[in-house]
Amino acid sequence: MPFAPAGLITLTTDFGATEPFAGIMHGRILARFGTARIVDLSHGIPPGRADLAGFWLGHAWLDFPPGTLHVAVVDPGVGTTRGVLLALAAGRLLLAPDNGLLPEALRRHPEVRWLGMDPRLPARLGLAALSRTFHGRDLFAPVAAALAAGALLPEDFGTPVEPADPAPLPVPRRDADGVLGRVLVADHFGNLITNIDAELLAACRQPVIEAGRREWPLLPTYGSAGNGAALALINAFGLVELALNGGDAAAALGIGAGAPVRVRDGITA
Amino acid sequence: MPFAPAGLITLTTDFGATEPFAGIMHGRILARFGTARIVDLSHGIPPGRADLAGFWLGHAWLDFPPGTLHVAVVDPGVGTTRGVLLALAAGRLLLAPDNGLLPEALRRHPEVRWLGMDPRLPARLGLAALSRTFHGRDLFAPVAAALAAGALLPEDFGTPVEPADPAPLPVPRRDADGVLGRVLVADHFGNLITNIDAELLAACRQPVIEAGRREWPLLPTYGSAGNGAALALINAFGLVELALNGGDAAAALGIGAGAPVRVRDGITA
Amino acid sequence: MPFAPAGLITLTTDFGATEPFAGIMHGRILARFGTARIVDLSHGIPPGRADLAGFWLGHAWLDFPPGTLHVAVVDPGVGTTRGVLLALAAGRLLLAPDNGLLPEALRRHPEVRWLGMDPRLPARLGLAALSRTFHGRDLFAPVAAALAAGALLPEDFGTPVEPADPAPLPVPRRDADGVLGRVLVADHFGNLITNIDAELLAACRQPVIEAGRREWPLLPTYGSAGNGAALALINAFGLVELALNGGDAAAALGIGAGAPVRVRDGITA
Repeated sequence: MPFAPAGLITLTTDFGATEPFAGIMHGRILARFGTARIVDLSHGIPPGRADLAGFWLGHAWLDFPPGTLHVAVVDPGVGTTRGVLLALAAGRLLLAPDNGLLPEALRRHPEVRWLGMDPRLPARLGLAALSRTFHGRDLFAPVAAALAAGALLPEDFGTPVEPADPAPLPVPRRDADGVLGRVLVADHFGNLITNIDAELLAACRQPVIEAGRREWPLLPTYGSAGNGAALALINAFGLVELALNGGDAAAALGIGAGAPVRVRDGITA
Repeated sequence: MPFAPAGLITLTTDFGATEPFAGIMHGRILARFGTARIVDLSHGIPPGRADLAGFWLGHAWLDFPPGTLHVAVVDPGVGTTRGVLLALAAGRLLLAPDNGLLPEALRRHPEVRWLGMDPRLPARLGLAALSRTFHGRDLFAPVAAALAAGALLPEDFGTPVEPADPAPLPVPRRDADGVLGRVLVADHFGNLITNIDAELLAACRQPVIEAGRREWPLLPTYGSAGNGAALALINAFGLVELALNGGDAAAALGIGAGAPVRVRDGITA
Repeated sequence: MPFAPAGLITLTTDFGATEPFAGIMHGRILARFGTARIVDLSHGIPPGRADLAGFWLGHAWLDFPPGTLHVAVVDPGVGTTRGVLLALAAGRLLLAPDNGLLPEALRRHPEVRWLGMDPRLPARLGLAALSRTFHGRDLFAPVAAALAAGALLPEDFGTPVEPADPAPLPVPRRDADGVLGRVLVADHFGNLITNIDAELLAACRQPVIEAGRREWPLLPTYGSAGNGAALALINAFGLVELALNGGDAAAALGIGAGAPVRVRDGITA
């Protein structure tokens, strides 16, 4: 599916909500593309965590209509020689530093065209000299404006590249006991999102889920457990999630990102 | 006043700002109603607090123009058999889980039409099977898009119901000494918002306000008190509020939601 | 450059993200100017810090196109007799309480027209009696709607005034040893933004930067330092910034706003 710009841009960053860094990106986009519609996907990515930005963008990008441009700026290498990447997939564009963010976002997507930014693009767009600390403002915003407005075609952005993929999120592995995975993130509710997906779980005939020295009974909904009780479920992103009904599992049990999650096959145990 | 859709949707949730949950709702709305205008009313409702979501929505919904659709998703019962509620009032629509949120929001409003969602509506709208954890994305967003676009009429949403109202916020009571109320919430500034409204206060001829073992002199503005001094005032929502001028009353005095607030009638004391 | 309204409004406040205070401003604006486009520049200004609101607005306002109206509400004097200020500069408007916020924002801008609000303006706009605690809703939102819609001309807002400037941010001073400045703010990343600008630094021929009892080598980018190592750089706002590459300098070193920053001229030392 080719890219037909819908004038719609999403932003995913680690800029937080204290300083106007994200707002400034809105300004620079609107200064070049006055009718852009901009959606803040998240500015709460933990600082520098390009992998988590990719994880969340990967679970959100297809919810927007074709013609959307997704811009993600988690950019610890800002000002260095790291490249800038554009991906075309399912009629959407995704723009980010070439630091592993987009490969994480698109890991499960079958067909992606990758382009690396032509170093002459900033000059061609008439951009002033870039600062060394805020390419969200100086580079990503004006490039996004041009792409979303249709003033810059994807094929004029740069040339095909193999994206960098330096620090992928951990993947679960099957072993004789069943599956060994990890908590990827404790979300705002304290729910523990793991890297074990429904398909992998389905391969265990009577799965018993263990983490933090307890069992988590597999139930259909939060409300299926008693008030405050622990449970596991398949969440809206197709992943095994550990939770307390009406509570904060991460805070109450001291479990966080990286914690091992064991799925035993109850038959073989 | 009938509902004439203005293409305007507000969102009130407990989704927080870390993960892109709210942004994903924007995406699903825009995928079905590309010209929707969406306002984030708040995504900072404390997790699961449908009552507080209702409180704040109740103090905000009339500030938006007629034709606005307000969507509120604080939904600890997601995936269970809890219903979905639509309210029509003053030419606006309000959509939320049927868990007491909307009755709290509309408690002071004289005329409300309540509709419970027809269970066949998701199929009629062509929605895929709903996840068990994120109906904001799978149900509320597409239903909101259809209502705000005028593609779904309120009368086709469902049938008249009596809304659930399981855990209303505490109400103050009059007694021989005056009024006994409570702090409902400590806001972002640490100001303590009570459930005692201006009308109730006016019934006391020389009110003396006590909370946390101190008196709070009733003054017109924050700046009427000395720097850092305690005061009470009637806030912009018509409620008695306890504050420190230039300070954070909740943090400095250790007073929070639920704390009793006594108004003595100075005449009778 | 005269003001030709672009229908674009930005909001900068200390309202936070918990309660719907900022969202309510959106509602009141849209109720009077239905096609307004509103950008949230920041609602995370520390409570009451009009000076910091001015600092950040000053580093953001020119990133938006001419015809933008910037509204900033950090207003500890709400409900008192403090005035309301409108500034016209570079084809943009800036509206805020007359408490020093806008002079801070526009300190480096050469040409500004200042107007103080005519006390009869609220009545002329048909506004209801103002609350004593939320002029963002009752005054700034409807005035902003009128200005951004072109329904109220700047010259009909009020009369020329000299703005109040009660508590300006500290400025660095040159002395025999070089420059003595201060940390103005620790940002979301824990980077320490100082009041020493690139020009002042350039006046030292071999600058050695000291703060918190350590030296901060001046490097071009975060990534030029070793992982976790301290550095200073010129940030995207033209200011000296102290940082840890990949770390949080404020938290790790216990340095915050107000900390002295010494630049020694390495030649003269």
